[in-house]
Amino acid sequence: MSDHVYKLIEIVGSSPNSIEDAIQNAVTRAGQSIRNLRWFQVIETRGHIDNGKVAHYQVTLKIGFTLESGDKVS
Amino acid sequence: MSDHVYKLIEIVGSSPNSIEDAIQNAVTRAGQSIRNLRWFQVIETRGHIDNGKVAHYQVTLKIGFTLESGDKVS
Amino acid sequence: MSDHVYKLIEIVGSSPNSIEDAIQNAVTRAGQSIRNLRWFQVIETRGHIDNGKVAHYQVTLKIGFTLESGDKVS
Amino acid sequence: MSDHVYKLIEIVGSSPNSIEDAIQNAVTRAGQSIRNLRWFQVIETRGHIDNGKVAHYQVTLKIGFTLESGDKVS
Amino acid sequence: MSDHVYKLIEIVGSSPNSIEDAIQNAVTRAGQSIRNLRWFQVIETRGHIDNGKVAHYQVTLKIGFTLESGDKVS
Amino acid sequence: MSDHVYKLIEIVGSSPNSIEDAIQNAVTRAGQSIRNLRWFQVIETRGHIDNGKVAHYQVTLKIGFTLESGDKVS
Amino acid sequence: MSDHVYKLIEIVGSSPNSIEDAIQNAVTRAGQSIRNLRWFQVIETRGHIDNGKVAHYQVTLKIGFTLESGDKVS
Amino acid sequence: MSDHVYKLIEIVGSSPNSIEDAIQNAVTRAGQSIRNLRWFQVIETRGHIDNGKVAHYQVTLKIGFTLESGDKVS
Amino acid sequence: MSDHVYKLIEIVGSSPNSIEDAIQNAVTRAGQSIRNLRWFQVIETRGHIDNGKVAHYQVTLKIGFTLESGDKVS
Amino acid sequence: MSDHVYKLIEIVGSSPNSIEDAIQNAVTRAGQSIRNLRWFQVIETRGHIDNGKVAHYQVTLKIGFTLESGDKVS
Amino acid sequence: MSDHVYKLIEIVGSSPNSIEDAIQNAVTRAGQSIRNLRWFQVIETRGHIDNGKVAHYQVTLKIGFTLESGDKVS
Amino acid sequence: MSDHVYKLIEIVGSSPNSIEDAIQNAVTRAGQSIRNLRWFQVIETRGHIDNGKVAHYQVTLKIGFTLESGDKVS
Repeated sequence: MSDHVYKLIEIVGSSPNSIEDAIQNAVTRAGQSIRNLRWFQVIETRGHIDNGKVAHYQVTLKIGFTLESGDKVS
Repeated sequence: MSDHVYKLIEIVGSSPNSIEDAIQNAVTRAGQSIRNLRWFQVIETRGHIDNGKVAHYQVTLKIGFTLESGDKVS
Repeated sequence: MSDHVYKLIEIVGSSPNSIEDAIQNAVTRAGQSIRNLRWFQVIETRGHIDNGKVAHYQVTLKIGFTLESGDKVS
Repeated sequence: MSDHVYKLIEIVGSSPNSIEDAIQNAVTRAGQSIRNLRWFQVIETRGHIDNGKVAHYQVTLKIGFTLESGDKVS
Repeated sequence: MSDHVYKLIEIVGSSPNSIEDAIQNAVTRAGQSIRNLRWFQVIETRGHIDNGKVAHYQVTLKIGFTLESGDKVS
Repeated sequence: MSDHVYKLIEIVGSSPNSIEDAIQNAVTRAGQSIRNLRWFQVIETRGHIDNGKVAHYQVTLKIGFTLESGDKVS
Repeated sequence: MSDHVYKLIEIVGSSPNSIEDAIQNAVTRAGQSIRNLRWFQVIETRGHIDNGKVAHYQVTLKIGFTLESGDKVS
Repeated sequence: MSDHVYKLIEIVGSSPNSIEDAIQNAVTRAGQSIRNLRWFQVIETRGHIDNGKVAHYQVTLKIGFTLESGDKVS
Repeated sequence: MSDHVYKLIEIVGSSPNSIEDAIQNAVTRAGQSIRNLRWFQVIETRGHIDNGKVAHYQVTLKIGFTLESGDKVS
Repeated sequence: MSDHVYKLIEIVGSSPNSIEDAIQNAVTRAGQSIRNLRWFQVIETRGHIDNGKVAHYQVTLKIGFTLESGDKVS
Repeated sequence: MSDHVYKLIEIVGSSPNSIEDAIQNAVTRAGQSIRNLRWFQVIETRGHIDNGKVAHYQVTLKIGFTLESGDKVS
Repeated sequence: MSDHVYKLIEIVGSSPNSIEDAIQNAVTRAGQSIRNLRWFQVIETRGHIDNGKVAHYQVTLKIGFTLESGDKVS
């Protein structure tokens, strides 16, 4: 187990509701084509403002996943 | 559109409820005297503790807005 | 009052629900043995992913508290 | 001279042509309402991409200017 | 009290005497047109050298103040 | 629109002519296999020196693009 | 040669033995599906502790490689 | 001597007089319960403003001390 | 498991032999009085030089451990 | 070749024309007394403003060069 | 004047009295062999502790000076 | 002793074997023309990859040494 290799990718998720929803949206999208997602780290939290209100949150994440034996890295 | 100029100001919003409310409070306050608020970036998240509980969240934001032709910068 | 001395400790709180709950869990735990907690600063927000969903948030905080006359620092 | 006080503001300039033009556009705009601009520091260089080409550069600057005796700070 | 909104501005103060005097000069200047200054954070300490001696210290501060109900933000 | 998910990749472009050309070369190359490139951020500017002259500029960019429904992330 | 374009990916390698082995494990894994690996930069060094001993080192690397004419970026 | 182990703690000292006094106050307080204080590093310099004057300086320090054979770490 | 709370402490380990030995020395020392050490992060690598040779490596670590129900935090 | 030793020096170049010219001016000046300049990294981009225009760009570079067998380091 | 080239060197000054004295000691020492010292920037402030008191301050500075036509860079 | 002045230089050492050897190679080279080397700090760890293997490690160090009374600084 101690020789595992992981890859980190950087994804920006958005949500009109909350920071947590923006994070979950990014994780859900990454999970559609990557098995074995393991952890995330928040890199930046931003958002758009429309008519003096927060229109949506944009959270940039690094998401780490285990590289399995057949996985191609690119 | 590609020659737009924006100004960034730094505002700290507070809320006893959530990080999102603290952000919205800062945005609302800035919107009272600035037209065309466009985006925010979270710079720091802090808070006060009272009797072992989070009393309120304090979120420092940079808020960007479009400078229009008549706007004074200072 | 202006000669107060504070200590900062670094604590990681977790919660399956929200970033705010992870912060409160860290603060609650620190408050069990430290009097006079005063403020926190968020250092890092991470989390674990399980089956393509955020399993829990992990928030690293610095928590500041007043050192009183009898308190031992170590 | 050694007791001068300066203010720093943060401005984002844009240009479809070059980083230098984006900087100059920000400086020109600030100079419309501020006397005595003195220096700038580049904080961030970004840009928009349209149809696989750089559509415009966006450069975030801090711009410093001398506060004169009658100037209001806010 | 927990819904307060603050603004941060960036000011550079100078003094031939000491870092503390440079800080106080910046604070004094900001206080001439802003009520309710609350705190400062030192961002950078620099200075000019003349004939092999420190001619003056230049300290860049962020200064925070409470936005009151009538205050304009810009 | 507020639920968009973006991916960020890191690309180094080079050019013997200018920083802008190095940026455009990186963007052009990424655009050959990615639709919907949206923005870039300059991470680092370096270069090689040959015979006391700048031989070429190397600019490291983060490039953001919209993930569309069929896109695979890896 | 001065118009080369490179891609940077972020990989975490592990080893129970040494930091160098953790780096080599990450490089070896990336080399299984990428030609023309050129350089790495260490981003972070961490590790797991088991029974008071370092169980394994985990080193996060950025690895740079030349994009060749047929390579797909994603 | 080359196998020494040190612990670093983070302390905030305050003083109405000077940055140096704020540092010394933090060091003095730490020295009441820790033997073998060895060095400090300034992490942040802040302060409170009252009626347009610096009311007190607050300096955050990391303070390093030698762990001796009987010392408990926690 | 998702409500775990961890504490991070900062320790400097030294060794004349290698960076890995300096890390292990810090971990071993922390483990003498703390149960449940979980992970470390390297914060800084320095060293002393004597007669033109590296006399010993000094590695500053953050070490994380699980706070159990009876543990006192201070 | 893998045992090469390099020295990095920090030089600020200026130019009224462009960032690239400021970089080249710094490199040219360093090349007058150093053989084997190899690469540069941009550390900071600043400039002076005169009458509301950019008077000149100032770019701080680290410049790396190979230390040859007879070179004195100081 | 806008084509000036400057060199930056990094010097650590010490003083048992104050941060300002430590800065001045570093500047004085650099001025013994360098003409045209122009400015300094504080990079880090540390110090040694002896018997629970600050024994001396150590301030790391970058010091900038004008390269004149005959000056050798190395 | 508390008035010592130190200079810091930045050196990159390489080795095909280990990070420690790359550090020692840099220190050895600096020691050929500088007396009184005192300490080093690792600034960056990189390396070249050849045929999918680490060809050599490159470690950038700051090396500090005592300036003695006759030493020229430049």
